[in-house]
Amino acid sequence: MIQRAFILSTGDELTTGKVVDTNANYLADKLNEIGLDLAGVITVGDVPERLEWAWKTAMEQADVVISTGGIGPTADDLTTETVARLTGKKLWFDNETADKMRRLFESGGRKMPENNLKQAMFPETAVIILNALGTAPGFRMAVAQKNHTSHLIVLPGVPREMKPMMEETVIPWLVESRGHDKVHVSQTFQTYGISESGLDQAVAGLIKPEEARVSFRASFPQISLRVAVEGRPGEAQTRLDELSARVREKISDFVYGEGDVTMEDVIGRLLTERHLTLAVAESCTGGMVGHRITNVAGASNYLRADLVTYSDESKVKLLGVSKETLKQHGAVSEQCVLEMAAGARKAIGADIGLATSGIAGPGGGSKEKPVGTVCIALVAEGFKAARTYRMWGTRDWIKTLASQVALDWIRRYLLGLPMGEGPFRR
Amino acid sequence: MIQRAFILSTGDELTTGKVVDTNANYLADKLNEIGLDLAGVITVGDVPERLEWAWKTAMEQADVVISTGGIGPTADDLTTETVARLTGKKLWFDNETADKMRRLFESGGRKMPENNLKQAMFPETAVIILNALGTAPGFRMAVAQKNHTSHLIVLPGVPREMKPMMEETVIPWLVESRGHDKVHVSQTFQTYGISESGLDQAVAGLIKPEEARVSFRASFPQISLRVAVEGRPGEAQTRLDELSARVREKISDFVYGEGDVTMEDVIGRLLTERHLTLAVAESCTGGMVGHRITNVAGASNYLRADLVTYSDESKVKLLGVSKETLKQHGAVSEQCVLEMAAGARKAIGADIGLATSGIAGPGGGSKEKPVGTVCIALVAEGFKAARTYRMWGTRDWIKTLASQVALDWIRRYLLGLPMGEGPFRR
Repeated sequence: MIQRAFILSTGDELTTGKVVDTNANYLADKLNEIGLDLAGVITVGDVPERLEWAWKTAMEQADVVISTGGIGPTADDLTTETVARLTGKKLWFDNETADKMRRLFESGGRKMPENNLKQAMFPETAVIILNALGTAPGFRMAVAQKNHTSHLIVLPGVPREMKPMMEETVIPWLVESRGHDKVHVSQTFQTYGISESGLDQAVAGLIKPEEARVSFRASFPQISLRVAVEGRPGEAQTRLDELSARVREKISDFVYGEGDVTMEDVIGRLLTERHLTLAVAESCTGGMVGHRITNVAGASNYLRADLVTYSDESKVKLLGVSKETLKQHGAVSEQCVLEMAAGARKAIGADIGLATSGIAGPGGGSKEKPVGTVCIALVAEGFKAARTYRMWGTRDWIKTLASQVALDWIRRYLLGLPMGEGPFRR
Repeated sequence: MIQRAFILSTGDELTTGKVVDTNANYLADKLNEIGLDLAGVITVGDVPERLEWAWKTAMEQADVVISTGGIGPTADDLTTETVARLTGKKLWFDNETADKMRRLFESGGRKMPENNLKQAMFPETAVIILNALGTAPGFRMAVAQKNHTSHLIVLPGVPREMKPMMEETVIPWLVESRGHDKVHVSQTFQTYGISESGLDQAVAGLIKPEEARVSFRASFPQISLRVAVEGRPGEAQTRLDELSARVREKISDFVYGEGDVTMEDVIGRLLTERHLTLAVAESCTGGMVGHRITNVAGASNYLRADLVTYSDESKVKLLGVSKETLKQHGAVSEQCVLEMAAGARKAIGADIGLATSGIAGPGGGSKEKPVGTVCIALVAEGFKAARTYRMWGTRDWIKTLASQVALDWIRRYLLGLPMGEGPFRR
């Protein structure tokens, strides 16, 4: 019965920091999706005794060990040898694999270097996993441990070869071999305007540990909460729906979306549904609001223009902000952002005008308007609002936070909600 | 003596595949830079017995164990407790840390949730590592093992908090504690417009392994090359300077900066030195060029305005692009970007006008102008240039690549270099 998994990521490029290990993340996600429990990931370089230790450790603890890397043709590719040595198996040479490799090279008009033949060697009892996109096939084999059987799955490290092997061969085999018919379902809530600990408190006691696993993920400036349920098909989804409803009721004020969505996705969907257009005027956020909005495919359907007026002069010339306002209230003022939002809207004839102006720092602050002071305004037909926030942190932090509040204003306006107090509510 | 290291990455978000572990990569790179041997990385979720196993395993094998994650305020943050239990230490409450946390919350006008106080608990004998950017400080402590002492270093999982703690506190301590009087110096070259393998070939044979360690790091869209030298004080720097000169000579065409600088830093410095101002007009990059430029403190000294004209109408109204040009050549054309750059420059009276227009995808491509077609133009007194690039990849990839080429154009213009062929030269 396969329940508990381990991932091995091998290669000096990982232990010297040359490459980010995206394979482990991909595999973790796939295992999570089919409800296997990932007990751990071990990463080691191409050093025989470390590889051996990693394999031994993983096999002892897991029903299935998935390894990437170390099956190339060069001298530092040690995985196949290590597995054979550890499991006491001899290596055999697979003629069919060797022929395929030769043909692959010949079809590219090249002669196969002899060291590639190493990739046609497999431990006895291994079942070959075909690799449609590269020379090195993978393999799997079962190894008896003290109290369980550990299934070893050896894959190449190149993501574009590894992923199809995983999806076409390994996952179907894993699903068939899990030995139970439980499924794993989850629901994610994207929140904003509440801290991770505030969120934790808000849902405390709502779900018992045996009902579901509740986890939080903070990815500035948003925090997501996930409810994950394991159970029999049908039953699991019903339970998830019921638990999700409980959570939703408690935190709906802070949820801007459910599932894998960003604030800019949500706004894009709302604007598209309502056939409304947007004009932005940015000062302190410096283009970040526009950048985020245009990260969504199809943004050209609603974003008419974004005027980043980084100087007083450009606010006057491009947005029609009055010199009097700048003189009397300054560029970081509710009066100014209101004129900016109205000016952007008018300049291009959009339905909604949104504006930001503030002091992102590190310089430019004063006692009255310290670094982190940010004004936001939204102007639409028969509607106008402006507000001053006191944010904190580094320059990029303030830009990010201000862009998030600004985007949230669009969402709130479209949903008829009051403009938010921002990330400072709790 | 500290030689051998282990990294622990903890958190359910890693074992469920929600987040790519970039922390381990960052730490591996930093350890490599100071010549420590990274024996392995272990990743586990927020499960007490797995955390305990991971810590025990790492301590047994390594002189220093660096952990990230699990020191937040919520119930699933278990690292501090686990370390205390494993090492037989009691937890103490640090009033000073608690006060700091309270003040941080108050400065943002919020009341600190009580569960945050958990972050002021530390195992006895722990030395606190200050966290300038977040509530959770880290700590380090020494733990006697059978044949060696293992130093535990506990850091938060949030990269922007963890990295400065590593650079300001942990690395200097590690360098001092390595137990020999050799110093470690390094020089980084930031490159653009050459592939990693092209760079590898360009410097092949230039430096012997015993002279220095040469490593490459690809962080889209830039690739850096680092020369790291270990030796006696004085001698090491002299050798580094000599080796750096050799490298510089070979790859100067591709180097836009040395040390820890971004393309936008370099441009900011050049524009400031020359007292020149900039106006940008963006289409496909959607604000990203402005966003990157304004990530540099002091950008208001040179960036006058950035007009993100995401619709044809806005190109005409705000930049004065002629309807005839749009009709005859389309918005993605060298004619259009030239008019955009000239229009932006004129609209606000800047010295330099820069423009981008292209098809970021996934929709909007045609046979003649497929997704990835990007036009860039720069206009200044007595100067104008435009060029069409064929880029590839996802929407965010194309936006990033296009913004990099656009920024590089400013650099090249200011240095009197020919406009680059972009990331396609090799």
